[in-house]
Amino acid sequence: MHRVKVRVVEDALDANNTIARANRDDFDRHGVTVVNLMSAPGAGKTTLLERALDGLSVRAGVLEGDVQGSLDADRLAHLHVPVVQLNTGAGFGGECHLDANMVRSALPSLPLDELDLLVVENVGNLVCPAEFRIGEDARIMIASVAEGDDKPLKYPLMFRACELVVVNKIDLLEHVDFSPERFDRALDAVHPGVERLRVSARTGEGVDAVRDWLARLPDRAGAPA
Amino acid sequence: MHRVKVRVVEDALDANNTIARANRDDFDRHGVTVVNLMSAPGAGKTTLLERALDGLSVRAGVLEGDVQGSLDADRLAHLHVPVVQLNTGAGFGGECHLDANMVRSALPSLPLDELDLLVVENVGNLVCPAEFRIGEDARIMIASVAEGDDKPLKYPLMFRACELVVVNKIDLLEHVDFSPERFDRALDAVHPGVERLRVSARTGEGVDAVRDWLARLPDRAGAPA
Repeated sequence: MHRVKVRVVEDALDANNTIARANRDDFDRHGVTVVNLMSAPGAGKTTLLERALDGLSVRAGVLEGDVQGSLDADRLAHLHVPVVQLNTGAGFGGECHLDANMVRSALPSLPLDELDLLVVENVGNLVCPAEFRIGEDARIMIASVAEGDDKPLKYPLMFRACELVVVNKIDLLEHVDFSPERFDRALDAVHPGVERLRVSARTGEGVDAVRDWLARLPDRAGAPA
Repeated sequence: MHRVKVRVVEDALDANNTIARANRDDFDRHGVTVVNLMSAPGAGKTTLLERALDGLSVRAGVLEGDVQGSLDADRLAHLHVPVVQLNTGAGFGGECHLDANMVRSALPSLPLDELDLLVVENVGNLVCPAEFRIGEDARIMIASVAEGDDKPLKYPLMFRACELVVVNKIDLLEHVDFSPERFDRALDAVHPGVERLRVSARTGEGVDAVRDWLARLPDRAGAPA
């Protein structure tokens, strides 16, 4: 029984990787760099996007992944960038993550020719999103200080499978039990030296560095390896 | 392809329900009431347990579910209650939730005859844990005010599939954008009238009410329907 289950999972991941490569080819053809934005629920993905996309020097669009509803997409409407809502509850069984096929289903709704950067906001979850590539160039993992400084040790795959870790809600640092040093040690234990930025999406502190990181990504992603 | 996937999921849930009933029978035979404790990562499940189990008037044990590691089980060691660690990364494919079979695998390690109450701390996740019954009598959902007041609308199944919602980290209320009224309205939209308690596991405020709720549960669970 267990072996059958593993086989099913492996087949599903193979299929996912095949579709992720097809997405990747489409993104390349249109010259779009893609970021997969991941975090636990309520870590501040949407608030950070609201701040970082405002004034961004490249043409950006957003694909909003949620189990249900369009609350986050609605919040981004005032930015006047293309935003497409993708619900895993509508035809995808209420999945706890985005996969390459779900992203592919949304591509016809996106004006890829008019974008330099596509940010895909994944479903809030610290486990499964890390297992499914969607054809992205880079992954950003957001951790809120309110979640505690032990999260890299408890959800190591997520913190390993990213190019940038954003520590958000630093305006709460004096009110929560979060040691930046303990967090950095935990992070380095699972992903030594990974790039990290500390921000408060609420106050705006540190958001400039995230905006710069996003603005530079198309150049870096397109550079020869 | 889609139909096959749905079939696989349905088969898996049928198997889960069969095993959940077997767990339920075992719990009943030993007179143990079981609570499934669910939340997003970092919402404060373990901190609340540390506080609420200390001085609890019934004999309690804990089954700690995590993808990896035993950080939470270690934190509970000082309580001198039986604690068993269950890792979904060890033989269960790194699953993002506990299911009935995982819980069943841990039962031989638990002194059920010596317990009135077993608290199962699920993997931090607001999606999949709600889909898998484990043979529990009741489910508690913890939401941290740091996550925002929109979470019931974004993760409705989780907030619907519980008997008690604990709003934690109320000591942060003045520092975060969380309206208790908006949260209550969102909660009532998906689970009208569900019992709710507001606490700060960190300061201890409101924890007495959670402790009382847990202490009363064996009586209520055993009462004729």
